[in-house]
Parts: sequence; structure tokens; C-alpha cells
Amino acid sequence: MSDFTHFNEQGRAKMVDIVHKPETARTAVAESSILVKEEIYKKITSGEMEKGDVLAVAQVAGIMAAKKTSDIIPMCHPISLKGIDIRFFWEAEKEQKRLRIQVSVKTKGSTGVEMEALTAASVTALTIYDMCKAIDKGMVIGETYLVKKTGGVSSPDFQKQLDDSL
Amino acid sequence: MSDFTHFNEQGRAKMVDIVHKPETARTAVAESSILVKEEIYKKITSGEMEKGDVLAVAQVAGIMAAKKTSDIIPMCHPISLKGIDIRFFWEAEKEQKRLRIQVSVKTKGSTGVEMEALTAASVTALTIYDMCKAIDKGMVIGETYLVKKTGGVSSPDFQKQLDDSL
Amino acid sequence: MSDFTHFNEQGRAKMVDIVHKPETARTAVAESSILVKEEIYKKITSGEMEKGDVLAVAQVAGIMAAKKTSDIIPMCHPISLKGIDIRFFWEAEKEQKRLRIQVSVKTKGSTGVEMEALTAASVTALTIYDMCKAIDKGMVIGETYLVKKTGGVSSPDFQKQLDDSL
Amino acid sequence: MSDFTHFNEQGRAKMVDIVHKPETARTAVAESSILVKEEIYKKITSGEMEKGDVLAVAQVAGIMAAKKTSDIIPMCHPISLKGIDIRFFWEAEKEQKRLRIQVSVKTKGSTGVEMEALTAASVTALTIYDMCKAIDKGMVIGETYLVKKTGGVSSPDFQKQLDDSL
Amino acid sequence: MSDFTHFNEQGRAKMVDIVHKPETARTAVAESSILVKEEIYKKITSGEMEKGDVLAVAQVAGIMAAKKTSDIIPMCHPISLKGIDIRFFWEAEKEQKRLRIQVSVKTKGSTGVEMEALTAASVTALTIYDMCKAIDKGMVIGETYLVKKTGGVSSPDFQKQLDDSL
Amino acid sequence: MSDFTHFNEQGRAKMVDIVHKPETARTAVAESSILVKEEIYKKITSGEMEKGDVLAVAQVAGIMAAKKTSDIIPMCHPISLKGIDIRFFWEAEKEQKRLRIQVSVKTKGSTGVEMEALTAASVTALTIYDMCKAIDKGMVIGETYLVKKTGGVSSPDFQKQLDDSL
Repeated sequence: MSDFTHFNEQGRAKMVDIVHKPETARTAVAESSILVKEEIYKKITSGEMEKGDVLAVAQVAGIMAAKKTSDIIPMCHPISLKGIDIRFFWEAEKEQKRLRIQVSVKTKGSTGVEMEALTAASVTALTIYDMCKAIDKGMVIGETYLVKKTGGVSSPDFQKQLDDSL
Repeated sequence: MSDFTHFNEQGRAKMVDIVHKPETARTAVAESSILVKEEIYKKITSGEMEKGDVLAVAQVAGIMAAKKTSDIIPMCHPISLKGIDIRFFWEAEKEQKRLRIQVSVKTKGSTGVEMEALTAASVTALTIYDMCKAIDKGMVIGETYLVKKTGGVSSPDFQKQLDDSL
Repeated sequence: MSDFTHFNEQGRAKMVDIVHKPETARTAVAESSILVKEEIYKKITSGEMEKGDVLAVAQVAGIMAAKKTSDIIPMCHPISLKGIDIRFFWEAEKEQKRLRIQVSVKTKGSTGVEMEALTAASVTALTIYDMCKAIDKGMVIGETYLVKKTGGVSSPDFQKQLDDSL
Repeated sequence: MSDFTHFNEQGRAKMVDIVHKPETARTAVAESSILVKEEIYKKITSGEMEKGDVLAVAQVAGIMAAKKTSDIIPMCHPISLKGIDIRFFWEAEKEQKRLRIQVSVKTKGSTGVEMEALTAASVTALTIYDMCKAIDKGMVIGETYLVKKTGGVSSPDFQKQLDDSL
Repeated sequence: MSDFTHFNEQGRAKMVDIVHKPETARTAVAESSILVKEEIYKKITSGEMEKGDVLAVAQVAGIMAAKKTSDIIPMCHPISLKGIDIRFFWEAEKEQKRLRIQVSVKTKGSTGVEMEALTAASVTALTIYDMCKAIDKGMVIGETYLVKKTGGVSSPDFQKQLDDSL
Repeated sequence: MSDFTHFNEQGRAKMVDIVHKPETARTAVAESSILVKEEIYKKITSGEMEKGDVLAVAQVAGIMAAKKTSDIIPMCHPISLKGIDIRFFWEAEKEQKRLRIQVSVKTKGSTGVEMEALTAASVTALTIYDMCKAIDKGMVIGETYLVKKTGGVSSPDFQKQLDDSL
């Protein structure tokens, strides 16, 4: 049975030892979303904004956050990310619009990049909130979760059991 | 009508000018949550962990993230936070447990602290995911949203219309 | 006569004491530029890039760098920036194109924001280099200088004597 | 009786609320030291090093660390430092030399700068260790402590009772 | 004879070239301590604090600082840490209590992790000072030193000659 | 024909995937400069400054900035730098003096270090501006460019065609 792996024999948190784990190619995909009013949807997507692209700013924020993950998440190992990609998908939801955010991260390393993908997805959503909050502070950031991961050695690949995964 | 405030006349993002806004006391409260299996709930709350406290690590992460907010969210103004508090509440949800995370932030400044509260809530949830993911990678971080804010000058106070707000 | 102000009586660098300087509104404008081949100019400005906007990424980088200035420049005082704006201007130069980058920074504080404006201008240019270097590594970042500053107490306002200042 | 001030009513750490504390001028002085072999002392101080000044690098490190203090110490409030000065004093100690490091920090703010002074003193000593460790890994960083603080509102001024304070 | 390795031929500091050094498994152990009054000892260890665990916060701070070492120590190479563990030991010392802090760091890399272990030990002690300073500002952080290192290529393993090493 | 490599199929910026590129030894050399008045030249180089060495501070800033490059330049991959060296050369230019700044960076990795060298050169120049701006705010940072790079796999070595390259 698996067990918490971040605690030492004094019952305190530690950064687990991965010195003997081999470096393998690894990927992780995570998703988040943000539910916005029709008015915000229109402003983001219409010509009103022209080059002033909310999503472009959010995406830069997400990529930069992925690189900062081990500085943000205390027990997370530093990893040299080899590639990050963030994609957006709009979906209607009743009278609002949901912007789905999908982040793919790749590395070659001795631990996975789940946290990097999840952190990037969260920060992308937070940045959209920040840039649109002058219009509506009631926007809600949706569920944030791991969609899949591959390439681990000790733990198996993971694939979320979800109808709405991409 | 309100409008996007982060773009300059070239249609590009900028950090909006708040140089003439007065400094006032401001608060913001945000929430996030994480839905975990019974097994994880037991390990976090039972004596098995003793002093090795998942929530203690997550809370430190959340507080440190609040202080980093303007480094994480591109158009967010740097603010000297004056106080941060993070509280946890467990709730049963079918056969799982939801850990609700509530963050309160205070400052005296010329802009609000909504982003600091939201960022801290997200990072607290992400840290719990990180520390428990060896047991289950299927945990889902719940909706993340602003519960209330007070103290602004140009924008009114905000209170989320939610039954489940605290 | 003015004098170096960053050294203590042991002849070593220090961060100069500004504890008794009043907080005043301050602005600084700095410029940099990058000289690129026609091919790069076309790709940046044409529809080939659509929403993939080199300048949008560069601008986010510049704004985030302005906020990091006191972490990058050793003797620079930390200042809570109140507003940042970055604008771009294309100019023909022989068979190449020069992209001029102009950064305006505002604060209310006890020291100036010249370094924030200069750092943002440099980082904006460096980011454009980074995003286009797969096409041409021979791009040259142009001169970087302060255009003007206002609002100081001990030092007079500054205005660069330049024909080509905006 | 004074009490721990960093814990909330759930017994968890928080960043204490200082929103109603007035901004006053504050100073703190802290000391650390490092005990080095005669050989290292000679190399640092003699002409062998010329402009390559171990102390200059260490001092820059200390000043930059003071500015990072709230990013390093979890419950420490962010403060805009107004001045930092680091001085060095060599003392003979048996057959070795002790380099005493004294850091003075000033701010105008609603909380003290003890942690900034202590952090700068520690990092200055650590940097000297780093730059000399190729010669001797047995160097010992000496005691690190607050020498004095002034300017608080709720807590009295502090002066260390020590014969060897400067 | 060994020599300073951080200076270039102009006598200036540089980050030494390790590009041809092989990657090997490396460990370092460092110690620091903090001497506190009986009152503080009791509050930290007794049930008064329950889950509000000073040591838990300090330990998170130490681990996060280890990851920031190359950002704090100017000439220190960035290294991807593979594991960090921090342990605490209380000892009576006259009428006070000394909390000994022992940090173990592991990596696989082309340079050692002595600075990471020393930096983590210092920051752990600084954080305890921060969290208890409302009760007593006279606490003293004890000597900070390398206990041992293994795994280098060009330099031999190191073991501190100390009776009180663990 | 080469093409922009930082955009995904939605036309948005991404951090390009280098997971399958082999790790090779790589070098990059970049230059910048700053043009200063005779008065500043004299103060920097004469005995008036003694150990208070403007160039020493600037150089530390440059080295630390090289290590922060992937945190400053959004699409830049994080790389573990293996060596950095910064050299200075004074040249007369009419009635002023130009300080040329040359930065060499080495790594072993799967992408180049051009951005690290360019960023370090820019920050070194910016730091000199900061430390001398009390005397003259009219200093101009000169052109900043890549001088050469070696060691890539997919892109050829680069050597700037310049009379004034070193």
C-alpha cells in the first residue's frame, strides 16, 4: 500500500530522496477552468481587445509559474522543464461561458511534473480572474485536476476517468 | 459600465496606474477546497501523522504564496500585506471528504488584496495535492472564488451570493 | 558636487539610507530598442502570427521585470510600483527595422523609479531577442537610456537632450 | 505576559495582523561572524586578491538577502527597506582570525526589521564560507544575534547585554 | 595547495567552470542551533501549541531555502536537489535549552551541496527566532558548520572533528 | 527556412519542447557597454573608491542575473549554469569613457545559453548605471549583442561579424 512520502522518522516533512531514481522522459497534463459572464467572454474574444489579449497574458503567467513550481510548493523537487504548452477551449454553460485551460508539461528527470502542470493551470486561471475582475468579481475558477501523466518509474501512468477530459 | 483596465491605448496589457488612489485598510476572503479519499482524510487527521502535519505545510505554502502574488500574477500591483490567516474545515461528501480552505488577507494600500487571497487559497490546495499524491493522483481541487472584499475606494464591497460561504 | 552614494565609510557598497525622504509621486520614462531583419519584422507584425503576439509576451516580461528590479539590481531600494506602461514603435533603418520600446513607470515613494523603467526596457528587448533568435541570432539590442524623470526631492527633474526622444 | 503571536485559533501559523499599527522609523542591528584559518585571512586581506574582494561579494549577498527576507522567512511581513549597511571587523582568536559582520537596517514601517538584519548577517557569513571553502571546509560561522532595535510601538527598544557588542 | 577558485584573471569574482566535472551522488550534512529560554522551550514542546508547530514552520522554511540557495549565495552553482531532511534535537544548557538543527541534503550533480545544507540550517534557525521573538529578542543562533560531505570528485570527503557532532 | 519556435497551433506562445535534444557542452559570449563621463570613470577607477568597487557589485549582479534568466525571460528554458565569467574593458570615446562588458557562460544542457549571457551583460550595465546615477543620469547603456555561441545540435555555431568583437 502506498503511503505518505514527505515525512521523516520524526514525523516531520522532508523533501523525499530521489537521488537513485533514473532520469526518464515524463509528461503531465492538467486542467483548470474559469466560468465568466457573457460580457467578459465577448470582450476577451471580440475585436474590442484587438492585440490586447487576456489569454496571451494568462498564458505567459502560466508558463512562468510552471518554472517557479518548486519555489511555490514546499516539498516539490526542482526540475528543469523541457517544454510547456497551454491551450484554451471555450464552452457554453447555461448563460455563461466556461474557458477550459489545458496545460501540458514535459521533462526528462527523476520525478514527475504533475505539480508543474497543476500549478500552471491554476495560475493561468488566476491571471484571467485578475485581468477581468474590474468587470465582475463573481467569476469562479473551476475544478483543477490532473488529466494524465506518463513516464514514471515507481508509479504507474495515470489517466483521469472523466467524460470531459480531452 | 466597467471595462477592462489592464490595456493601454495600443491595446496592450499594462499595470494600471493607481498612483493617485488613497491608501485604505482592505480585506479579502477567498476559498478553495480539495476532495480526497477517506484514506487520505484519515492519514491527515489521525495520530499516524502526529507532528508531521500536511495542513501545517500547506498553510505555510499558502502564506508564502500570498507574499509572492505580484511576482506570479503579471498585472498585479505589489502590496505589503499586513496579515494573512488560513483556516481549514473538513466536510463529508458522499464517500469522500472535502477539505475547505479559507484565506483572509489584510492590507493597508491603494489596491485590493483579492488576488493575494485567491492565490494563497490555490497554492494551499496545490500543496495538499503534492503531499498526498503518492496515495492518490485522482484528488480534485474544488472551485476557487472570492468570498468577500472590503475597503476599496472606486469599487464597492463584494459579498459572494452563496449558501455555502462561511 | 554630487558623489557616489552607495558606499559606506569602509569604502564598501551599501543601500543608501532614505528613511527620512518624503514619499512623493514619481515618474520615469526609459527607452531601449532592437534592430531586426525585415523577415522578423514581417513575422511579428503580419497575420502569420495572429494572436501569437511576440510583443505581448515581451511586454508581460517587461512589466514583471519592473516589479523584480530591486531583486535584480543589488543596491536598488524596493518600491511598490503604482503603474507601468510599455509602448512599441517600429522605424525603418536602412534595410532593417528598429523596434523602439518605451517604458513609463509611476510610483509614490521616497526614491525614484529610473531603475525600474530601465530594467523593464532591457528585459522587453531581451525577450524579443529570445523569441526571434531561432531566425537570426545577429539581432542587436540598441542603446538603453533614461528619457526623463520627475518627482524627486533631492535631485532635479531630468530630461534627456535627444532629437530622437519621443 | 507576552505570547506566541504567529498562531491562529486553530493552533496554526498565520502572518499576524499589523494593519492598524502606525508606520514609524525603525532600526535593527545584528551580528554574525566567521572563524577562518590564518591562510584564508591573508588571502582575503592581502594584495593577492586585489580587486577580487571576498568581502565585497559577501556584502552584496547580505544586502540582497535583506531585501528577500520576507520571501525566506515564512511569517515575516514584507517591508520596504530604506537603508542597509554592512561592516566588517577582523579579530585575532588564538591562531585563527574571526571576521565579525555587523548589519544595520532601517525602514519606516509598521513592523520591525530584526529579521532583515539577522538574515543579512547570516547570508553574509554563508557567502564568505562559500567563497573560501575550496581552501578549508572546517570554517565555523559564529553566533548570530540581534544587537539592538529601536522604533517599535508595541514592543520596547532592545539592547543586547553583551561585553563584545560594538 | 588549494586556492581561491571564485576569481578570474582580472581578480574579479566569477562562478567557477564545472562544465567538465562528472555528475556524482553527493551528500552534505550541516548543523546550526538556537539557544532559547525555558519559557520558549515549554511553549514549543508542550500541548499549548498543539498543531501550531513552530518546528514545522521552521522546517518548511529550511527546505524551501535549500532550494533557493543559488539565488541567495552569489557564486553558488544552481543544483537540482534530490532530497532534503531536517531533524531537531533539544539539549539542556545551564538554565536554557538549545535546539540543535541538523540538515541532510542529497543530489546527483557536478558540484557539492555544502552551501544548500548550511543555508537550510541557518534559515531554519532564523525562522525559529522569528516565530518566538515576541517573547524574547535575546535568543542566540549558535554556531553553524558543515558536519560532513561525501561524493566529490576533485575534493576529498570531509568529516568535522567535533565531539558534539551527531 | 527557420521559423518562430515559441508558438503553438493556437498561435499562442509556448515553451518549446526540447525533451529529446541531447545534453552537450555549450558556451555563449555576449557584450554590452556603458558610456560614462570622465568624472565617473575617474571615481570608479581611482583610489577614491578603494575597495568600494562599482565593478565588483555590478559583476555580482550580472552573475546572479544569469542564474535568474529563466525567471526573467518568459519562454526561456531553465538551465543549470556551469560557469560564468564577466570581464571589463575601458575605452576612450571622444571626451567620455566606454566600459565594455563581456560575459561568458558555459553549461552542459539541451539548449543554449545565449539568453543567460545577454541577460547578465544587460544587468551588469544596469547596475553600473544604478551605482553612478547620483552623479549623472545621462549615461547611456550601449548596444547589447551576442558575440558567439558554440555547442548547439540543431543550430550552427554563431560568430558575430564585427570589427570590435574581442
